[in-house]
Amino acid sequence: MRKIYLEDTPLGEAQEKIKQRVHFSPKTEVIPTAEALGRVTAEPIYAKVSMPNYHASAMDGIAVKAEKTYAAHEQHPVHLKRGEDYIEVDTGDPIPDGFDAVIMIEHVHQVDEETIEILEAAAPWQHIRPIGEDVVVGEVIVPARHKLRPVDLGALLAGGIVSVPVFRKPRVVIIPTGSELIPPSEHVAEGEIIEFNGTVFAAYLREWGAEPILRGIVADDYALIREALREAVQEADLVLLNAGSSAGREDFTVHVVEELGEVLTHGVATRPGKPVVVGIVEGKPVIGLPGYPVSAYLNLEWFARSLIHHYYGSMEPERPRIEATIGRRIVSVMGAEDFIRMTVGCIDGKYIANPLTRAAGVTMSMVRADGLLRIPPGHLGYEQGETAQIELYRPLEQIHHTIVATGSHDLTMDVLDMLLRKSRPDRFLVSSHVGSMGGIMAIQKGEAHIAGIHLFDESSGTYNQPFVEKYLRGQDVALVQLVYRQQGWIVKKGNPLGIRTVADLAQPGVTYINRQRGAGTRLLLDYLLGQEGIDREAIYGYTREAVSHLSVAAAVAGGTADVGLGIYSAAKAMNLDFIPVAEERYDLLMRGSFFRSREGEQLLECIRSPQFAQEVERLGGYHCRDSGSILYLSPHPWPV
Amino acid sequence: MRKIYLEDTPLGEAQEKIKQRVHFSPKTEVIPTAEALGRVTAEPIYAKVSMPNYHASAMDGIAVKAEKTYAAHEQHPVHLKRGEDYIEVDTGDPIPDGFDAVIMIEHVHQVDEETIEILEAAAPWQHIRPIGEDVVVGEVIVPARHKLRPVDLGALLAGGIVSVPVFRKPRVVIIPTGSELIPPSEHVAEGEIIEFNGTVFAAYLREWGAEPILRGIVADDYALIREALREAVQEADLVLLNAGSSAGREDFTVHVVEELGEVLTHGVATRPGKPVVVGIVEGKPVIGLPGYPVSAYLNLEWFARSLIHHYYGSMEPERPRIEATIGRRIVSVMGAEDFIRMTVGCIDGKYIANPLTRAAGVTMSMVRADGLLRIPPGHLGYEQGETAQIELYRPLEQIHHTIVATGSHDLTMDVLDMLLRKSRPDRFLVSSHVGSMGGIMAIQKGEAHIAGIHLFDESSGTYNQPFVEKYLRGQDVALVQLVYRQQGWIVKKGNPLGIRTVADLAQPGVTYINRQRGAGTRLLLDYLLGQEGIDREAIYGYTREAVSHLSVAAAVAGGTADVGLGIYSAAKAMNLDFIPVAEERYDLLMRGSFFRSREGEQLLECIRSPQFAQEVERLGGYHCRDSGSILYLSPHPWPV
Repeated sequence: MRKIYLEDTPLGEAQEKIKQRVHFSPKTEVIPTAEALGRVTAEPIYAKVSMPNYHASAMDGIAVKAEKTYAAHEQHPVHLKRGEDYIEVDTGDPIPDGFDAVIMIEHVHQVDEETIEILEAAAPWQHIRPIGEDVVVGEVIVPARHKLRPVDLGALLAGGIVSVPVFRKPRVVIIPTGSELIPPSEHVAEGEIIEFNGTVFAAYLREWGAEPILRGIVADDYALIREALREAVQEADLVLLNAGSSAGREDFTVHVVEELGEVLTHGVATRPGKPVVVGIVEGKPVIGLPGYPVSAYLNLEWFARSLIHHYYGSMEPERPRIEATIGRRIVSVMGAEDFIRMTVGCIDGKYIANPLTRAAGVTMSMVRADGLLRIPPGHLGYEQGETAQIELYRPLEQIHHTIVATGSHDLTMDVLDMLLRKSRPDRFLVSSHVGSMGGIMAIQKGEAHIAGIHLFDESSGTYNQPFVEKYLRGQDVALVQLVYRQQGWIVKKGNPLGIRTVADLAQPGVTYINRQRGAGTRLLLDYLLGQEGIDREAIYGYTREAVSHLSVAAAVAGGTADVGLGIYSAAKAMNLDFIPVAEERYDLLMRGSFFRSREGEQLLECIRSPQFAQEVERLGGYHCRDSGSILYLSPHPWPV
Repeated sequence: MRKIYLEDTPLGEAQEKIKQRVHFSPKTEVIPTAEALGRVTAEPIYAKVSMPNYHASAMDGIAVKAEKTYAAHEQHPVHLKRGEDYIEVDTGDPIPDGFDAVIMIEHVHQVDEETIEILEAAAPWQHIRPIGEDVVVGEVIVPARHKLRPVDLGALLAGGIVSVPVFRKPRVVIIPTGSELIPPSEHVAEGEIIEFNGTVFAAYLREWGAEPILRGIVADDYALIREALREAVQEADLVLLNAGSSAGREDFTVHVVEELGEVLTHGVATRPGKPVVVGIVEGKPVIGLPGYPVSAYLNLEWFARSLIHHYYGSMEPERPRIEATIGRRIVSVMGAEDFIRMTVGCIDGKYIANPLTRAAGVTMSMVRADGLLRIPPGHLGYEQGETAQIELYRPLEQIHHTIVATGSHDLTMDVLDMLLRKSRPDRFLVSSHVGSMGGIMAIQKGEAHIAGIHLFDESSGTYNQPFVEKYLRGQDVALVQLVYRQQGWIVKKGNPLGIRTVADLAQPGVTYINRQRGAGTRLLLDYLLGQEGIDREAIYGYTREAVSHLSVAAAVAGGTADVGLGIYSAAKAMNLDFIPVAEERYDLLMRGSFFRSREGEQLLECIRSPQFAQEVERLGGYHCRDSGSILYLSPHPWPV
């Protein structure tokens, strides 16, 4: 049928293979020093002039002849005559001929217009900047293969270097391929996919010191792709083809590279990122990158970044690493190296890392990731509580200033983050969604500072507090009222199936979409079903789980479900109808240490602010009448 | 006479004062997403379309109706008919109506053209990317005040965001002032100074996300500077005046700011960096920066960078810090905060930091610095061997890959660095100059990997080895021959005083420039004086010390000395004459652990290469006949 298997070349081996085959000989261009920030020197740069190029006063004061001051001390002031014994000089002035020391203005006492008095002898050459104190003719200012920083530009100019030989930036031609691709747009039809990988590649390449050349989209057509590649290698130092790098019916990259040159690797033993093509055409490296964004960006770093450093003969920078505790079990299979996007939080002085989705198509997981966990091929993964090295994507100080929120998904968390950033530039709130019960567990295990929960207790008829008292007995926690919110049926515009009550869900022909186990919304449905005595099995789709209100709404909007339980704002975002079912309390559970911290106080201030109520009520389906009231505080002793 | 005293405002207080008085209201501009790398979002950005916006196949394979596969298992294959039961799909293809699962091509067995066989049931919705898997309409893609990274651009485009509201970059007008300043040039007359600070400021500002506007040089004239400032505040969000920020005769900044607006601070309690003016003119912050480059760049960071982050409402990034052992005593005075540029090396797994010159005029000290040591006002400094926090200027991995060289100064060290970088992009050699004896001590104390030494032993008539045996007895070290080199008298072109022998130095009217204590060249002079029975006191200038061959040559070229002892290449660099005196051995002393390391091997390879001999002999005054031979190896047992 089709060739369907790829190689499992170890990543390091694939990287070495291409580096050994490609011999760049970068051209040198001479550019004005003032424009050379970030460029890489092609040779060592030697100073052409000295700085200063004359003996200069290092102070505001007077130039003197040192030997005429030798007799001065506190009991024996020495008088000096202007012009003859001293001359006023400012910092940077040349030392006049015949003078050989400078006395600071602070140590000079004016006697009259023409006479000054000093109380201390001057040593020869004191407070004089000798020729070349900063830069001496002939000295190396910066070595070859040095990436120029702002201060290097200053030293070069000081040394009389007005233009500087640097390596031309490597040219990287990017060819997006795919008949389903359309240029960036606000309007996308079914079957169309916005081409955005090329823009991301170009941005990364720019950051890495290359010159990206982004071509137009080429359709999935063997001849067209071959022509595009043939043309690209004329101009480029490196060519990127995206996508078509796997082994499917319309994956032409490997065949095109094979025809025009040589394929070195087709498939690396990584997850994600496996389907990559690495080859050479007319001496130029060609990388066929996968279409899935995460796979594409990882391969870009593995191959393009590494080749750019190979071009410059420079060292690949490493990301800072930290040791973190793994918050959730991570399973790895033998034989492939795993690259797992992680969130990282710092809770009570301890780093906690949790895996994000492993789906290679989720760009947002790269946006949200704080770091990357690499699991080598022979390693089976991590149990919860084990520690591992995380490569950081974000500066560590940001992670230190991040409030880690988890639990149930609610849009008001985004509002909180926005308001917090506005008032405190050094605070971030990052949320992940694990459902209300997951939130309680995260607080218990010290994996989050706060958790949004909305858990209805049937026996008491109240929200949240009974669960906190049951699961967090004896622990130091606080429960703070965030918002009241409407839950309701999310249905298609016009409610074509006429859904009103929970009983309507059990009607034939109605497809439901449920939330994951542990989600408060699922518990609410179960409560409603119990009240009416309806069997779960009677609900078609009860076992299909979505992990957020927006995902439920998306399923309804996409036609794969007729109804789901969720919040008003999710229905609104997808232009769906909303049938109210219940008002519930959505509270924030906090670790006690966080509640009492300055960060906790700032968050509480934010929750109690009129701006919060205003922004939240504008979303629709919310009420803020008690926002910020403290519902429960564990009886722990407060630290003195 | 003149106002000569400045305030001693604590740095943090001065920074707070200006931040509290300046209220930026950044304008928003909407720019194409593809051009928004590094820009800061003005508001949260919500997705306009979902990605994918249809249910898409996540794999290459076949779309099926899940219920038709339920009966399949290994003992009971199920056959499916093309078109009716299955349709071929590639990754990204829409799932055809009526189909609800995808089976990977690897699990499909072709029976005939129209029939396939499967051995496993498909779960509904398996291998299907639901609508919005990546980005869901209405979700926040990035929050406000977020600096856009490459992957953010991808997520924005995926969410249908083709243009994005960002803050306009803050405009910073830079006004260089000073009648002695000339634009960058290769030709500098006495009394002229190249204006390079403006270029450095502009480069830093660009890195920090601002738009620098560098004006032409303004002479030291009150009215001209006032006009320049008056004009600048119309356009700028922030104005930088440089220099004239102190309290000298021609320091106009404070007076101009006073006349047009308000001075908040004149002088901060730091060393260097004290003479800064911080004020406000027409609501715009104005910073008067000192002329000395190091003071200027530190103040730029303290005030301009901090105001730029204030503008964006973002967090000031921190440099990574390490704990290092202080290699040389550092004295601090009470009352001022010291900022000391440091070199940092990693020797046998331990970080060693040493101070560079503290002179505020030495740009090269910023070029050479690996990090910064901050000593708070109440702290008296560090004794050798104490540990301190160093803020790093260079990536830590570079420091890990740096060979720390010290000892006597020689130009062949630059050659070694150049060749090493050429063959090994991940190796650096950084040298500091402390003289031969200083080099021996540094090796002994574990402050350097290698040290260049040329110490003549009078009793044995040999070089170096007797000193190593005396001072490093029982220690694990190696001594490797680097070069033979000529020492000689460095004199003015044409040798006007006719210097030939050491006796000529004692003639009346001859001014000598000596090297610092512990320098091999100074020992050589002492030996020559001893041989001829000449008293040191007879040499005029014996006590004046220069710390390198180039500094000796610079003193002769500058006319403050007639003769000094040094190497040929230094004389050549300064266009001076050279009278040979002796050929000496310049060797590399190495710590044993380094000698046996891979880095040590690579260095030895380099020293023994023909390129090294070729480059070194081209300098003149060198011979490489035994380069790389091992002269001494301590009798330590080698690790197995």
